[in-house]
Amino acid sequence: MISKAKIKHIRALQVKKYRKDEQCFVVEGAKSVVELLHSDFEIVWVGATPEFLQQTKSLLANKKPEVSEATEAELIAAGSYQTNSGALAIARMKPNTAFPIRDNEWALLLDDIRDPGNLGTIIRTADWYGVNHIIASEATADFYNPKVISATMGSFCRVHVFYTNLLPYLQAARKPVYGTFLEGTDVHQLHWSGGGLLVIGNEANGISSAIERLVTQKITIPRYGRAESLNAALATGIVLDVIRSKK
Amino acid sequence: MISKAKIKHIRALQVKKYRKDEQCFVVEGAKSVVELLHSDFEIVWVGATPEFLQQTKSLLANKKPEVSEATEAELIAAGSYQTNSGALAIARMKPNTAFPIRDNEWALLLDDIRDPGNLGTIIRTADWYGVNHIIASEATADFYNPKVISATMGSFCRVHVFYTNLLPYLQAARKPVYGTFLEGTDVHQLHWSGGGLLVIGNEANGISSAIERLVTQKITIPRYGRAESLNAALATGIVLDVIRSKK
Repeated sequence: MISKAKIKHIRALQVKKYRKDEQCFVVEGAKSVVELLHSDFEIVWVGATPEFLQQTKSLLANKKPEVSEATEAELIAAGSYQTNSGALAIARMKPNTAFPIRDNEWALLLDDIRDPGNLGTIIRTADWYGVNHIIASEATADFYNPKVISATMGSFCRVHVFYTNLLPYLQAARKPVYGTFLEGTDVHQLHWSGGGLLVIGNEANGISSAIERLVTQKITIPRYGRAESLNAALATGIVLDVIRSKK
Repeated sequence: MISKAKIKHIRALQVKKYRKDEQCFVVEGAKSVVELLHSDFEIVWVGATPEFLQQTKSLLANKKPEVSEATEAELIAAGSYQTNSGALAIARMKPNTAFPIRDNEWALLLDDIRDPGNLGTIIRTADWYGVNHIIASEATADFYNPKVISATMGSFCRVHVFYTNLLPYLQAARKPVYGTFLEGTDVHQLHWSGGGLLVIGNEANGISSAIERLVTQKITIPRYGRAESLNAALATGIVLDVIRSKK
């Protein structure tokens, strides 16, 4: 059974301010919780069906979180999903620390990605293409928002996001900086070697003009029809696919 | 002012059954309503700010919908958005009719895309890549769902979706049928000429086994990292980008 206090706590963790105070976040669904159990996140609590607890016995023994047995209905009532495949967990947030980007590495720079679903999908896509580091502006959606965690489909365990002021970061970076614009060089025509930073612009406004000045190579995904733009996560995936396949 | 009866009607149109009975759907936001005014959809009613009505005077004179002047606050109260940039419209649904696919044309086949946001993004992406026809299984999200319309960013005016039973459709199609699987041929290694049908599988289960048997060419988007899969709309965009750039 999940206690009333725990349900209240889980619901409160939907709110960024409360997450920040508690330094905790929620992971919902069996698949994501299994990824969490395999990760280096500290796990505070797991609520799950007897089947889930049985199947993940050794993983749980390793991580030693507090455990509550619960029914599917209780998990749904506690969480934000309309269905839940058997587990819900509370884990400890990691500190927001910078990471070095190696010379041959590709990293993403998010210039105000506001939609949690888009951020989650970008993280999942980065993980597919072997991109482990994302630098995000402070106005970008919160990594620990349950909708972001959910949309990553488990990739939140493998991709690191560092929140910072992008301008000083880019000024100090000394790396090639690529950004998608309507009037750049066709991504398919470029010679993609080495690594670099790929800037993804805000959903409505694209890359801000201050950041645009620090882009060393403007790129374009060619358009064949009439849509005005591509979704930000889509554009990320297409450019990463080109980078990886052209190397 | 928007009448109480109109607000009730707009809210009811959030529900598929009511949309089907009324054969009407809602379009929210200035940008999407402008696209609607340029389209061949019959427009029943437009509620908008004085500025919007002024700017679209000639378009409105052409389409002759019923018009109500409204404040931004009234538009937000009536619609499903948290913000509204100035307009909301009710338009007439089009009949669900089959369309011919030309020999050199590419069309999408959606095998149960359940998420309205994904469907909308797929429509927008198809429009970017000049794909005008989509054939969708009957369990695919409803084209006229406000979340779908919204996620298309206006592309609902240019891309046609035909709902049907995919099995008999494919059996009769006599066209190359491509589908993404984990064990197909690398999309970058194929020679993409002519046209064909590209099947996009369900978000959780991929392409169903009955449809899989009718796929003539299994394809794969190579993975470089550890995510288990790509989002369905992402995969669509990446394959369309490869098709268009390799031709």
